[in-house]
Amino acid sequence: MSFELTVLGTSSGLPTSKRFPTAHVLNVHERFFLIDCGEGTQIRLRQFKIHFQRINHIFISHLHGDHYYGIFGLLSTFNMLGRATDLHIYSPPELQKKVEFQMFPEEFKFKIIYHPHNFEKPETIFENKNMFVRSFPLQHRIKTCGFLFKEKKKDKNILKEAIEKYKFSIKDIVLIKKGNDFVTENGKFIPNSEITLPQPVSHSYAFCSDTKYYEEIISEIENVDLLYHEATFIHNDAQIARTTGHSTAREAAMIAKKANVKKLVIGHFSARYASAEILEKDARVEFENTVAANDGDIFDIELDTILKVKDKN
Amino acid sequence: MSFELTVLGTSSGLPTSKRFPTAHVLNVHERFFLIDCGEGTQIRLRQFKIHFQRINHIFISHLHGDHYYGIFGLLSTFNMLGRATDLHIYSPPELQKKVEFQMFPEEFKFKIIYHPHNFEKPETIFENKNMFVRSFPLQHRIKTCGFLFKEKKKDKNILKEAIEKYKFSIKDIVLIKKGNDFVTENGKFIPNSEITLPQPVSHSYAFCSDTKYYEEIISEIENVDLLYHEATFIHNDAQIARTTGHSTAREAAMIAKKANVKKLVIGHFSARYASAEILEKDARVEFENTVAANDGDIFDIELDTILKVKDKN
Repeated sequence: MSFELTVLGTSSGLPTSKRFPTAHVLNVHERFFLIDCGEGTQIRLRQFKIHFQRINHIFISHLHGDHYYGIFGLLSTFNMLGRATDLHIYSPPELQKKVEFQMFPEEFKFKIIYHPHNFEKPETIFENKNMFVRSFPLQHRIKTCGFLFKEKKKDKNILKEAIEKYKFSIKDIVLIKKGNDFVTENGKFIPNSEITLPQPVSHSYAFCSDTKYYEEIISEIENVDLLYHEATFIHNDAQIARTTGHSTAREAAMIAKKANVKKLVIGHFSARYASAEILEKDARVEFENTVAANDGDIFDIELDTILKVKDKN
Repeated sequence: MSFELTVLGTSSGLPTSKRFPTAHVLNVHERFFLIDCGEGTQIRLRQFKIHFQRINHIFISHLHGDHYYGIFGLLSTFNMLGRATDLHIYSPPELQKKVEFQMFPEEFKFKIIYHPHNFEKPETIFENKNMFVRSFPLQHRIKTCGFLFKEKKKDKNILKEAIEKYKFSIKDIVLIKKGNDFVTENGKFIPNSEITLPQPVSHSYAFCSDTKYYEEIISEIENVDLLYHEATFIHNDAQIARTTGHSTAREAAMIAKKANVKKLVIGHFSARYASAEILEKDARVEFENTVAANDGDIFDIELDTILKVKDKN
């Protein structure tokens, strides 16, 4: 049951030779969720060997070019590869017109279903039996949403010895897996904790870009395993962050700390910094478990490990 | 006096992990001409260390996405870098609206001057004292133009001995450099060839993509030093080339042969071929001096040498 993030691009508005603009892919149980789609996303998907025909859901945070200019090429490629599966796009409402003006989606062999963001308040925008996705407003120069991807509470596993001892009915099993206690035929009370393994962990990932420091998001992202928060500037350049509606690395870390997340990954770095080390260091002043991402980094959220692209190729 | 081509992208509609969509940069005497602008062009420009703020002229052959989806990111980057110099774009007329719908060029600090193509007949679309550019119609599924970049006839150099012997006036020098003969004060006729070095070579490059096999272009590209011609398919797949309005490698080579060009470079390869070798081999059946380009190849047209990107980085 995978829960794995691949970071496709880590630059802000100006890409560099090594950092493409923003795009992430989250693999939840072999369903692929694409989050933002900067220029070159389809090339990164190929370079990092993502099975991108498995992407059925695309989430676009906002309509600054470095977060969506890759959508045209990607849609065109889906079509050329003969895609027939519906594609769901969750985005600001204007994206649909931008796509329709730039290309001819009416000639596509697949259907695009647009889901416009609610910029007023958080809401659940996708749900299946294993997980859900919520959007929540961020604070940037233009209307922007962040996203939370979270596994639902998983069923508990019943201890093998208990199954043998009590010969549960199917109805019993369903109830016990959900956390109910059990009573034997002769009235003996057996608490759930005696007959089950500990509750399996449900994993979660939150994506917050672009945004200035904005504490309103904390209640939405509290306790996530992995938080991605933009960190365009270092603390010394806080004034530029302020005027451009971005965050410093240290501010990203303050949000991580207040939201009590397990790990913080930062990206969307300004091209003014020759290396991301300075940003990682800046964040660690507030939150030690911070990683400055590079294009191609893979975060295995279940195992809490990071694979670098150099390990992959 | 440089005359050098850098190939930025060599894929057709579907980019691969190593081949970006079409884009070329021609450096003529340190002026940079960008030809087509597929997705990721600005990233390739950085990766190949092109001084892209020196690009003042962009030529877009046609409005299939793999030839222009990179323009939005590039324009946005120009603006973020504080560009103030006018930018000339030579393209199908619809590009202007596509740019204006996708971004806010009215807020740019630089001016874009659009020059719509003439799809009816060849014409000179740019000229300065050293060179000129001509556009000419190609034959593709939609209206498309190719481009010829050519140095003007250069002034001849006068032999040092002749200068010492005849003590030419400034007026004499101008005339002799243009190829005129000379008459001494006492009436002696001196033919131009006796007092000058041989005519310096004027270099030329022609870009033909996308197009099916189309002999009408030959008169425009005759005798060029370097011809780029698309070669999407091999001869065995000629039927697909026919229905998609593309050329086979062998057809590109036939054009090169009939146009008597010095060297042929092919690109725009279909992703169906694992390696471009098969396309190069296919072309060489008709025209031996063919090179299948890779992203990052540099053709020094003056010296007639090729530098590979691996030599550069």
